[in-house]
Amino acid sequence: MSKKNVFQIEQLGPCKIQSPIPYSTVMGDDIANYVTDDEKILYDIDLTPGKTTEDLIDGGLLEKAGPRQKIYFNPMHSHAAIVTAGGLCPGLNNVIRAVVRTLWYRYNVTRISGIPYGFKGFLAEYGLSNIELNPDNVDDIHNMGGTILGSSRGNGKRVEEIVDSLERLNVNLLFIIGGDGTQRASNDIGDEVIKRGLKISVVGIPKTIDNDLLYTERTFGFETAVSKAVEALSAAHVEAKSANHGLGLVKVMGRDSGFIAASTALSSNDANFVLIPEVPFELHGKNGLFAHLKDRLERRQHAVILVAEGAGQDLMPLESKTDQSGNKLHSDIGAFLKLEILKYFEEINMEIALKYIDPSYIIRASASKASDSLYCARLGSNAVHAALAGKTKCLVTLWNTHFVHLPISMVVKGRKRVDPESSLWRDVQETTRQPLNMTNK
Amino acid sequence: MSKKNVFQIEQLGPCKIQSPIPYSTVMGDDIANYVTDDEKILYDIDLTPGKTTEDLIDGGLLEKAGPRQKIYFNPMHSHAAIVTAGGLCPGLNNVIRAVVRTLWYRYNVTRISGIPYGFKGFLAEYGLSNIELNPDNVDDIHNMGGTILGSSRGNGKRVEEIVDSLERLNVNLLFIIGGDGTQRASNDIGDEVIKRGLKISVVGIPKTIDNDLLYTERTFGFETAVSKAVEALSAAHVEAKSANHGLGLVKVMGRDSGFIAASTALSSNDANFVLIPEVPFELHGKNGLFAHLKDRLERRQHAVILVAEGAGQDLMPLESKTDQSGNKLHSDIGAFLKLEILKYFEEINMEIALKYIDPSYIIRASASKASDSLYCARLGSNAVHAALAGKTKCLVTLWNTHFVHLPISMVVKGRKRVDPESSLWRDVQETTRQPLNMTNK
Amino acid sequence: MSKKNVFQIEQLGPCKIQSPIPYSTVMGDDIANYVTDDEKILYDIDLTPGKTTEDLIDGGLLEKAGPRQKIYFNPMHSHAAIVTAGGLCPGLNNVIRAVVRTLWYRYNVTRISGIPYGFKGFLAEYGLSNIELNPDNVDDIHNMGGTILGSSRGNGKRVEEIVDSLERLNVNLLFIIGGDGTQRASNDIGDEVIKRGLKISVVGIPKTIDNDLLYTERTFGFETAVSKAVEALSAAHVEAKSANHGLGLVKVMGRDSGFIAASTALSSNDANFVLIPEVPFELHGKNGLFAHLKDRLERRQHAVILVAEGAGQDLMPLESKTDQSGNKLHSDIGAFLKLEILKYFEEINMEIALKYIDPSYIIRASASKASDSLYCARLGSNAVHAALAGKTKCLVTLWNTHFVHLPISMVVKGRKRVDPESSLWRDVQETTRQPLNMTNK
Amino acid sequence: MSKKNVFQIEQLGPCKIQSPIPYSTVMGDDIANYVTDDEKILYDIDLTPGKTTEDLIDGGLLEKAGPRQKIYFNPMHSHAAIVTAGGLCPGLNNVIRAVVRTLWYRYNVTRISGIPYGFKGFLAEYGLSNIELNPDNVDDIHNMGGTILGSSRGNGKRVEEIVDSLERLNVNLLFIIGGDGTQRASNDIGDEVIKRGLKISVVGIPKTIDNDLLYTERTFGFETAVSKAVEALSAAHVEAKSANHGLGLVKVMGRDSGFIAASTALSSNDANFVLIPEVPFELHGKNGLFAHLKDRLERRQHAVILVAEGAGQDLMPLESKTDQSGNKLHSDIGAFLKLEILKYFEEINMEIALKYIDPSYIIRASASKASDSLYCARLGSNAVHAALAGKTKCLVTLWNTHFVHLPISMVVKGRKRVDPESSLWRDVQETTRQPLNMTNK
Repeated sequence: MSKKNVFQIEQLGPCKIQSPIPYSTVMGDDIANYVTDDEKILYDIDLTPGKTTEDLIDGGLLEKAGPRQKIYFNPMHSHAAIVTAGGLCPGLNNVIRAVVRTLWYRYNVTRISGIPYGFKGFLAEYGLSNIELNPDNVDDIHNMGGTILGSSRGNGKRVEEIVDSLERLNVNLLFIIGGDGTQRASNDIGDEVIKRGLKISVVGIPKTIDNDLLYTERTFGFETAVSKAVEALSAAHVEAKSANHGLGLVKVMGRDSGFIAASTALSSNDANFVLIPEVPFELHGKNGLFAHLKDRLERRQHAVILVAEGAGQDLMPLESKTDQSGNKLHSDIGAFLKLEILKYFEEINMEIALKYIDPSYIIRASASKASDSLYCARLGSNAVHAALAGKTKCLVTLWNTHFVHLPISMVVKGRKRVDPESSLWRDVQETTRQPLNMTNK
Repeated sequence: MSKKNVFQIEQLGPCKIQSPIPYSTVMGDDIANYVTDDEKILYDIDLTPGKTTEDLIDGGLLEKAGPRQKIYFNPMHSHAAIVTAGGLCPGLNNVIRAVVRTLWYRYNVTRISGIPYGFKGFLAEYGLSNIELNPDNVDDIHNMGGTILGSSRGNGKRVEEIVDSLERLNVNLLFIIGGDGTQRASNDIGDEVIKRGLKISVVGIPKTIDNDLLYTERTFGFETAVSKAVEALSAAHVEAKSANHGLGLVKVMGRDSGFIAASTALSSNDANFVLIPEVPFELHGKNGLFAHLKDRLERRQHAVILVAEGAGQDLMPLESKTDQSGNKLHSDIGAFLKLEILKYFEEINMEIALKYIDPSYIIRASASKASDSLYCARLGSNAVHAALAGKTKCLVTLWNTHFVHLPISMVVKGRKRVDPESSLWRDVQETTRQPLNMTNK
Repeated sequence: MSKKNVFQIEQLGPCKIQSPIPYSTVMGDDIANYVTDDEKILYDIDLTPGKTTEDLIDGGLLEKAGPRQKIYFNPMHSHAAIVTAGGLCPGLNNVIRAVVRTLWYRYNVTRISGIPYGFKGFLAEYGLSNIELNPDNVDDIHNMGGTILGSSRGNGKRVEEIVDSLERLNVNLLFIIGGDGTQRASNDIGDEVIKRGLKISVVGIPKTIDNDLLYTERTFGFETAVSKAVEALSAAHVEAKSANHGLGLVKVMGRDSGFIAASTALSSNDANFVLIPEVPFELHGKNGLFAHLKDRLERRQHAVILVAEGAGQDLMPLESKTDQSGNKLHSDIGAFLKLEILKYFEEINMEIALKYIDPSYIIRASASKASDSLYCARLGSNAVHAALAGKTKCLVTLWNTHFVHLPISMVVKGRKRVDPESSLWRDVQETTRQPLNMTNK
Repeated sequence: MSKKNVFQIEQLGPCKIQSPIPYSTVMGDDIANYVTDDEKILYDIDLTPGKTTEDLIDGGLLEKAGPRQKIYFNPMHSHAAIVTAGGLCPGLNNVIRAVVRTLWYRYNVTRISGIPYGFKGFLAEYGLSNIELNPDNVDDIHNMGGTILGSSRGNGKRVEEIVDSLERLNVNLLFIIGGDGTQRASNDIGDEVIKRGLKISVVGIPKTIDNDLLYTERTFGFETAVSKAVEALSAAHVEAKSANHGLGLVKVMGRDSGFIAASTALSSNDANFVLIPEVPFELHGKNGLFAHLKDRLERRQHAVILVAEGAGQDLMPLESKTDQSGNKLHSDIGAFLKLEILKYFEEINMEIALKYIDPSYIIRASASKASDSLYCARLGSNAVHAALAGKTKCLVTLWNTHFVHLPISMVVKGRKRVDPESSLWRDVQETTRQPLNMTNK
C-alpha cells in the first residue's frame, strides 16, 4: 500500500487572497516563483538492499515550504502570536526575529505579540503581559542566546484556556517554537481551534537541541550545540593529558538520542569512548567499559569519555519522576559514572585523576553560530509563509536539504535515534577506535 | 531515456580480498554493515511542476560511499600518496588526518606519503622530498588552518610526469584534494594510469571554498568560510553604523557562484545589498545600485554591501589573464566598486565614509569549525574506503545528506551556481530587502 | 628643580556639595572610602643607572582618580554630554555605558545627551539630533563594536561654535572620548569655557588604539586590537607555511608607535620580522630586509613580516596630506612593501608566494575583550567622578596600575613610543630572532 | 626602620662569564642594554593619607629582571630542567616554550629536560621518563591548554629525594612553575641545594590562576581565566533572563581571594551579586543575601549570582581535609548555595528557575589569550636570564608594569587579597549595584 498521503498538511480553508509579495509565476525571468502545494520532495531516497525505486516512490512525498501566491488570511486583519516553550536552545531569538520580520516586511502584518514565558503567558493566573514585537525591537536579538520572550516548561495540557486566550487576543496566526511535548500541545491546540470553528493557523517550529526529531535532517541549534560541546570535550582532553592516568569525563545532552555525543566525537577527535542511549554497554566484566578504560590508561596514560545524558540508564537505580513537560527524568549518568569509576580504580588500587565536566547550560545558552543562524532565518520565514496560507497543525523543517511542511501528528509519534548500524555510528567508532561492543554477552 | 547509468563509477578490477575491518553483513546485530555497490541514493528528489515521480527515478542513482566487504588492493602491499593542490580552504588538514588514520588504523596501510606543495611535489625539477605520514604526526593538525603538505597551483597538465612519479614511488592509492582544475588533472591522471595498465586508484576529495561543485550538497570549508565572512561583514556593519553616511563594503570569495555571499547575508543580517555573479546589476540609472544606495543612506544613514569576487564582471574593463590553475583571472570588483562609489558620491556632492574590507586570506587560512571538521573526517575516511575498493577517477562527496561516489568526468563539466529563482536567493532578498532587480531594463 | 607640580589638575571651583554616594571616610570599616585630592601615586619608579631615589620623588606625583566626598556640581541640576570622535576603537561603547550608568545610578544625573557623530553633532550645519541616553538604552551596547553615538574626524578647531552649543544645551559635564587631536580640542574647549566664565567640566577619556599616549600604561582597546591582530598574523603564517617560499605580510595600526606590532609579535610567535616606526631599516644591501628575507626563505621555506603602518616612511615617496583630524597621512607601507618584495624576488628570479593582509577595520570594529571591558568600565566611572568634582581639562587614565588624572596639556605634548633599547623591544627581538639591526651602516 | 633590603635576591656566586647575547652597555645606540643588579623599581608608589614620599622610598626596591652582562653558569656545561606542578592554568605551555627557546637560542643551552607530572617526575617510585625539550617540539604548544609536561599535586616535602634526583641528572638550572605550595617546595629545594654546596639555581615562575600572589601585579593565566568566566557568566545571565524568576548561579575559582569573581563582574556586567572570600555575608535576615535576591526577582524577574569558591566558608559545616598540595579543602559553596536557595524559595512559596554553572575545568584548561601569551613569553625568558645569572630561590614576576625578581621566602608568607575598601571592590559594587553590606549586624 502506498504511503503517499501520510504527509498531508491540514488546511483551514481555501486560499483566495493575493499574496502581497511580488514573486513570479514563470520560470526564466530571474525572479523567484511562488511555491505551489503540488511541489513536493521525495521522503525516502535511500536504496538499501532489497528495496526497489518503486519503494522509494511509495515512501511518500513531503510538501515544500515557501510563499504561496494565494493566501488564506488577510494580513491587514491579522494578529500573530509567538511563543517559545521548553529548555533553551541556540537560535531561538533568530527564529523569533525572522518570524517578526517576514510578517512585518513581507506581509505587512504589524500586530505581533510575544507571549511571555511559554504557555504560562496564556494563563491568566500568572498575570503576565504580552510583548509587542516589531522589526526594531528584534533587530539585534540574533546575537544573543536564550529567548527574549522567556520560556518555561509545562501547561501544555491546558489547551482550552490557551485557546480561550487566543480568542480573547483575536490571534489568527500562532507560532509555537518548542520541542516534542510542546508540539503535542500545538496539535491539541490546533484540534481545539478547529473544534470551535475558529480560524487560527497553528504552525510549529521544532526545537530540540538533541536533534531527535523524526523526518528532520537536523534541528536548529544542534550544530551550535556540537561546536560548544567540542570546546568542553577539548577541556576534558587537556585535563586528562596533563595528568598521569588522567581521565576526562564529559556529559552532553541527549535524553534519548546520542546525536550530540556522536557528532561531537566526530568533530573533535578528543573522545576515546562515546556512550549513547542507543548502544547498551556494561561497566564491569572482561569486555566492560572499565576494563577497556584501564587498558587505555595503561597504554596511553590518559582517556576521555563522552557520555550522552540518556546513556546507560539501565545501569542505574530507577527514577520515576518526570519534568513539567512530561519528559521522563533521567538519573544523572555523569555523576553516577564519576562515582563508579572512582570506586573501580580505588578497588584495583590504581591512582587516577578524574575531571568531570557538565557543560549543559553553557551549551544551551550560547548564541547561534553562522550555520544555525542561516537555518533559523529560513525556518522562521517559511513558518510565516505556511501560516498565512492557512496551513495548521504542521511543522516547518528541513528534509533532504529542502524546507518542508510536516503534520505534527506524525512527527510526535516517536523520536529519531542514532542507528548503531548507520554510517554515522560506524564513523564514530572509526574515529574513537572504541570497541564495537562493550557488553559481556 | 533513462539517465540511470550516468553516475557509474570506474573500477580497476574485481574485489577479491576480504576487508580487514570486522563489519557485519546482517542487519539487526547492532554492528555496522559493509556497504555494497548496489546501495544507492536517488539524485533528483524535487517534484517541481510538470515532473512526475517517474522523472525522479529517471534522474539517476548515486553510489553510496563506505567500506566494502571485499577490497581490490592488498593493504600489506599498498603505498598511499596524498596531495593537496590549489588555494587554501579550511579543513584540508582534517581531511589529511582522516585519510591517514583510516589507512593506518582500519586497513593497516602504513606506507603513506605526503606529496609536498601540490603537483610540484611530483616533479623532479623542484627537488622536493615527500613527507612520511602516520597517526602521530597528523594527530593535532586538525586544529590548524592550511595544509601541512603545502599546496600550489598549476602543473595539472604534466600528467605523464606525474604518473611516472607514481610509478617510481610504487604508489597504488592516490588521494587528490583540490578544486575543479585539480580534479580535471585527477581524471587525466586516472586515464593515463589505465592507459599504462597500472593499478592505481585515483580518488579525489573536492575542495572548493566557493561551494560551486555540481552534484554536491556543500563542499568542506564552506560553512567555516561563511562563519568567518560573517565576522568581516559585522566589522563593516559596525564601521558603517558608526559614521554619518557610513558605507561598508566587503568582498568575499565566489568566482562564479555567489554561495558564500548569499549564505553570509542569510547568516548575519548585516548586508543591505548582496551582489553575486549570477545576478546582473547596473551601477547607474534610476534603478541602479547607486541610486538605491543613496536612497538607503538618506533614509538610514548607513549601508553595507557584500560583493562576491565574480560579481559585476561585465561592468569592468576586460582581463584576459588566467592563474596557474587555468582559472580566468577576475578584475577586482571590490577595488572597482570602491572607486566608483567614491566617484559617484563626490559627483552628487554627498559626503560618505566608505570602509572597504577584503578578508580573503583570513577566511581561507582559518581552521575548520566543528561542522566542517565532522564533514572532513567523514569525507576522508570514505575516500579511503573507495580507493581500497579499487574505485578510480571518482570523487567522494555529499548529496542529499548521504556520502556518495561521483565520476570526476561528470562533476567537472560545469559549476553549481545560485539560481536566482531558487528559495536560497529568494530568502536572501527577503533578508536584505534589496530590490529584486537592479537593472534599468 | 622638582617637577612635583606639573601634573596639577585644573579645578572649576571649590567642592561644597556632599556626594550622594554613601562611601566611608574611615579605614577598617570594610566600606570603600572617598578619594581625596591629596592621594597620589609616584610617576617615576624606575631606578635606572645614575638615578637616585630622590630623582624618583622629583619625577612628580599623579593625582588619583575616584569619587570625592564633596563635589562641585549639583547632580539634580546637571546635564551631561558625551561625544566620541576619531577612528573606531574597541571599547567605545563600554566607556559610554559606564559613564551613563555612573551618572545615573551613582549621582542621579538623568539628563544625559549623546552627541552624534563626533564634533559634527555640535555644529548646526549638520542638523543632527542628540540621543537621550539612559541605563536602558545602553544596557547591551558593551557587546557591540563601534560607537552607538557615531563618530567622525575633524572640526576640533571650531571651539567657539562647540562652546556655543554647550551653552545652548546647558551642559555642565562634558565627556570627550577621542585621540590626540580630539583631546587637543578638549583642552581648547576647556580654555574657552573658562574664558567665558562658564561652569562646565571638560573631562577626556583618551582613545588611541595605537597605545601611544604619554604617561599612560596602556590605552583601552589596545589589548583587544592585539588579540585580533594575532588572528590576522596567524592567517598570514598559515598561508606562508602552506606555500613553497610562502611569504605572509601583515600591516597593523601604529602611525607613530609600534606597540601593536611589538605586542602582537610577542603574543603570537608567528612573525619573523617586525617593522615599526621607531626602528629604521633598509630594504636593500647586505644587511637589508630583503637579504634577510631571502636567507630565511631558503632556510625555512616561509617567512612572515609584521609591519606597523608608520614604519619605513623614509623609504617611500613623500605624502603631504593630512586627514580631517590633522594627522599626517602616511604612505601605505604595506602596499609599498608588497610591490617592492615582488620586484626584488622577480629580479633575483626566485619564485615566491606572497599574501598580504590588511586587517585594519576588522581590528578596529571588534567588540572589546574581557580585559578591555573591565578597563573601560573603570575608566568611564572614574571620568564621571572627576567631572562631578569639577575637574576640567583633564584625562582619566591608568599609570602604574592606578587610575589617575592627567592634565590634557601635558599629555598632548608628544607621543609614547617604543624605545628600541627597552625590554619590550628586546623581548620582541628575542622572540622573532630578527637581526638587531637591518641597516647597512 | 627602612625595609629597603627585604627584597634581596640570593645569588649562587659571582658572575664571571660573559653572556653570549650581544646586548649593549651604552644608551643611545638603539640596541637594548644588559640589565644590572642595581636597576630596581620602587615597590610602594601609593601616597595614601598620612604617608610621605619618604615612606614610599622606605617601602623598598625590587630588582629588575632581564639579561645580565656577566653570567654565573657556563651555558655549554649547563643542563636545565623544567617542572610544572599543581592545577592547570592557561599559559603553562607558553612559559615552557619561552624557557626552552631562550635557553636554546639565546644561551645555546641544549640540554633541557622536561620533568613529567610535577614533582612525581623526580621520584624513582613512579618510574617516569624525562622529556627532552627543544625548539622543535615546543614550537606549537602555546596554542594548547594544559602542560605538555603533565602536572600533579603534592610531594613538595620530599626535598631530599628531589635534590638527589637533580644531582643524578646533573641539573644546574631548575625552573619550577607552580603555585604557593609548590614555591614553598622550591625554596626548600633551594635551601637543600645550598646546604649540600651544590651549584643549582632554583627559579620559580609563579602560577596561581586566582591572582593571589603577594607583590605581584597579576599572575599569568588570570586574564584568560576571567575572559572564560565571562562566558560562563553570560550563559547564566541568558538562562536567568529567559525564565520567569530565573536565577543564574556561577561558581568561579578563588580559594582565598576574590580577584577572578571581581574582575569577571567588572568585565561582563552580568552579575547582580558577587560573593568573595574577603567580604562576609549572611544568607538570612532582613539584610541577608536571600532577602535581596527575592527583592531583585520581584523587581526584575531575574538575577545572577557570581560566587568565588572560597566565599562564605563560615556559613557551611566544617571540612578538615586538605588536598595533596596541602591546600585546605573548601566545602563546595556553589552546591551549598544552590540547595539553600531552593530551600528558601520553597519555604516562601515563590517559584524560581535556578541554573547552576561550575565552569572550573573549562576555564583552567583553556589555551591562553593574547595578553597572557605575551606575559608568559616574557616571564619565561626573564626566568632564564635569572637562572643563568646564578640567582636562586627567587621568582620572576610583574610589579608596577616591570618584570622583577622576588625572594620566594617573602612571597609565600601570605596571600594577596581583595581589599574591601579598594577601588577594585568599590568599582564592583558600582557595577553590580549590590548592597555595600549583606550582614545583619
